[in-house]
This record gives sequence, C-alpha cells and structure tokens, in this order.
Amino acid sequence: MNKKTRTVFYISDNTAVAAHHIGQSLLTQFQDFYFRQIFKTFVDTLSVAWEVANEITKTANAEGQKPIVFSSLVNPETRQIILQSDGVVFDIYDAFLEKMENELRVASTPTIGRSYRIFDETSYQIRINAVNYTLAHDDGLTRKDYHKADVIITGLSRTGKTPTCVYLAMQFGINAANYPMTEDDFYSTDKNLSLILSPYHTKLFGLTIDADRLHVLRTKRIPNSRYSSLKQCQTEVRMAEDFFNSTNIPYVNITKMSVEEIAAHIMHEKNLQRRIN
Amino acid sequence: MNKKTRTVFYISDNTAVAAHHIGQSLLTQFQDFYFRQIFKTFVDTLSVAWEVANEITKTANAEGQKPIVFSSLVNPETRQIILQSDGVVFDIYDAFLEKMENELRVASTPTIGRSYRIFDETSYQIRINAVNYTLAHDDGLTRKDYHKADVIITGLSRTGKTPTCVYLAMQFGINAANYPMTEDDFYSTDKNLSLILSPYHTKLFGLTIDADRLHVLRTKRIPNSRYSSLKQCQTEVRMAEDFFNSTNIPYVNITKMSVEEIAAHIMHEKNLQRRIN
Repeated sequence: MNKKTRTVFYISDNTAVAAHHIGQSLLTQFQDFYFRQIFKTFVDTLSVAWEVANEITKTANAEGQKPIVFSSLVNPETRQIILQSDGVVFDIYDAFLEKMENELRVASTPTIGRSYRIFDETSYQIRINAVNYTLAHDDGLTRKDYHKADVIITGLSRTGKTPTCVYLAMQFGINAANYPMTEDDFYSTDKNLSLILSPYHTKLFGLTIDADRLHVLRTKRIPNSRYSSLKQCQTEVRMAEDFFNSTNIPYVNITKMSVEEIAAHIMHEKNLQRRIN
Repeated sequence: MNKKTRTVFYISDNTAVAAHHIGQSLLTQFQDFYFRQIFKTFVDTLSVAWEVANEITKTANAEGQKPIVFSSLVNPETRQIILQSDGVVFDIYDAFLEKMENELRVASTPTIGRSYRIFDETSYQIRINAVNYTLAHDDGLTRKDYHKADVIITGLSRTGKTPTCVYLAMQFGINAANYPMTEDDFYSTDKNLSLILSPYHTKLFGLTIDADRLHVLRTKRIPNSRYSSLKQCQTEVRMAEDFFNSTNIPYVNITKMSVEEIAAHIMHEKNLQRRIN
C-alpha cells in the first residue's frame, strides 16, 4: 500500500533535539504515513522565524494540506510567528510551561539557547572521559583498565557492540568496554570464561542476533566469504548463545532493536545509573 | 543561594529518551531549582506501573511535595495508573495524541515499544557505517578516505573534537573525521593549508575554546606540564584562531557549549542534512 505523505517541520531556537524526540514519539504511533522531515535549528531571530513561517505556509499551499510542526521555541515572539503560519503546531512550551510554572510557583525565565541540556562542567568531563575510555577499549583494543569499566559488552562481529558502547558513553557517561568474541572463547578448555574475562564476570553483557540477520550484515561487509556465509553465522550464533548460557552472562537478541533500545536495556538489566544529566 | 529541590521521574514503556528530552526542555527554564532525577524505563506491565506509582506517592509523602513526572507511556492502562499517583504528571500522549489523530484523521495504533525511534534497516546501516568511519578517522588515525568525509573537524587537543564527531555519526549518520591541529600546521611555510588538508578545504570546520578553559581541561589530563600551562594554551589558541582566519576555515568557540549544541551548530553552518530518521 502507498503510504500517505505528510511534511513535518522541527523548529527550535537551539538544537531541535527535544522537538525531534517529541515528534518521533508521536509520529511512530502512525505507521501508515510517510513523514518527510525538515529541520530548522537556531531559529533565533524574528526574521528567521518569518522565513520559516513562510516556508510552512508555502508548503501547505503546494501540498494542499497543512504541515505538522513540532516546535520547542523558547522565545514567545518567535513562537507567535510560527503559530501564524499555516501549519498544525505542536509546541512543547505552549503545552506544558504554564502547568510547570503553576506547580513550581515561579515564572520561568525564557532564554534562547536553553531548549536543551545546558552546559554542565561535571557532565561535560564525565562524558568526555567515558567517550575516551570507550574508544580506547573498542574492539578489544586493550584489556588494561577493565577494572574501570562499568560494563563490558561482548558478542560476535557485527552484533552492534561498538555503536552500543559509544551510545552508552555519550548519553549516559558510562565506561563501556567492548570485547569481541572469537572462537578461542568458545573452545576454552574448561568451558568457562577465559582468563582475561573471568575477573570481570559481573560486568559482562552479551549481544546476540538472529543468524540470518547476521548473514545479511556480514555479507554487506565481506560478501561471499566464510565469515559471512549463513552456515558460519548459524554456527557462531549457536556457540555464542551456548557460551552466554553456560557462563551465566546475561544477553539480549538485538535483531529488531535500535541502538537506543539496546543501550536502555543494558542500563536496566545491569542496574547502571546514568552519570550525566 | 540554596536551590530548592524537586524530585523528577521519567517514565516510559521503552527507553525514556523522549520523556527525558521533554523534561530537560522544561526544567532548564527553571534555573533556581535543583532537580533530582529518577529514570523508570521499560515500565511495560501493570504491576511495574503500580510499583512506580507507589514510589511516586511515597516520595510525595516523604518530601512533602509532589514529584514532577514526565511520561511517554504508550499503553493507556499503565498511563492511567501513573495518573493515579501523587505526582504532577506531564504526559506526551495526553497532551498531543488526540490533536494528532484529529489532524491525520486516523486513530493511532498504540504499541508498547514504539515510544522512540523504531527499528529501521537503512538508518541502522548508515549509523553503523558512520560510527565506524568516525572511529577509524578519530584523532587523525588515518587520512585515507577523507574524500568520504561529510565534515572534517579540526582543532587543538582537548577542544572536544572526538565527542563532537561521535555525536554527529551517532545522531545524524554523518561521516565525521577528526584532524588534530599541531604546530606543524601553524608553521607551514606558505601560511596556507597543509598539503594533507588542502584538497578538503570545503569540508573543514574548526573548534576553538577560551585559553583559560583549555588550561583547566588540559591540567586535568596532564597537570604541571608545558602542554597544560596557561601560557602554552594562550599561544596555541591564538595561533589556531589566526590559522582558521587566514585559511578561511569556519569555526566556533565551544567554551560554553554542550556536545549537542556544537553538533547542531556544525550541521547548520556546513549545511549538512541528517542521514537517519
């Protein structure tokens, strides 16, 4: 079936991260539509706001239907300009700010550039350190400092370890090391954790994936190889899952998960606390 | 002045990413408060919802004031349970879903696990490839494949190049290479771009920082060194900015910016389009 198309604008006087997330939350509830997305960041002057409002109205005229507009404009003046456009405006501050002011019993102090995470010295440091830690420990580059890891993600090649670790570091300030599984791990004589990993048993978390999906991902990397063959993928996945089970490493099948979901799942399962605001 | 404290809950049947961003947008408008933040992810059964509702009510009783609750629960039943707690509930779907249904003239199909970016094959691939590209080109590791870069971020040591590149890759699917500036770049005989960079002039974007802030950041890394001395930081910052100016590389001073803001600024200035939903 052909999906109906709607144009969506995300408007912010800053990064549009918040407007985007709200939009995503709502739009994913309507799977029968295709949403063409346009981002307008740093809409921080009246003239730029008028330009955007005009673009919305022109789009409405051209498409014969109103664009959907998610706005996190902090400045009441630019917000009013967007409200005069021919879009259907969903505005975070319109929806929630008054209720919040009533609850906190103070007026807000609207300031452009505060629509997302404000600069925070401690969080900045923690985040940089976590990203540096994670990059230094990507792909088993070094096993030094595993004692400083909050979590050690392990799994076969192409199971999403690296993006997961990077996301954990970036969004939660978590030191996430990445230990790629190899056949050596499966064949360790005592059917137990390798000497490298055993001191860190409680930090381990495994990623697994459906073999046919792994086959697709590996084929994109190295087509027509033993590495990417369905048979090899099936064997490795079975051995990896056996390994996780026999060594009591918690794990998750990431076949249909986004990086956000994998990361949130690990935070939840390992009872990790975010380190940054 | 002592900040007033309020407890904040973020509740989601999935990752709580959306609830968190909305909360951040609103809370940053109230700078006189300290917000103690509690995350409740994967609230996907009625019994877990009741546990969370009870925790909210207990917190209200213990603190003598209602916690603030940001919810992105998709399931109407769990949402109702949270609404019965003693919190002040800000709910994305309560606020916006009906308006969206009216506009799109269809009912939504609420499904747990859709509260954030759904799994999307193309985006997944683009994102993984961008993260891999960015890590391979971190810290000038290799200058091969600069022609595949969407942007090449350059700047002095400790100006936030790596987290910025990682964020660009992760959130926007952008191939972001990272070229650390050294004194060799400043002293190139023709006062021009080095031979390495000159073919990629249009892809370059510079990061700079206040010298006293750089001094603080470098001191945390290597205290009492020439590298971290204020004098050295002042010299390097001046030379870096002279270099950006004389070679016409656009740049931004990141002293008071979050990684989100730096990344959004670069997307905007370099007119880059996000590659993922």
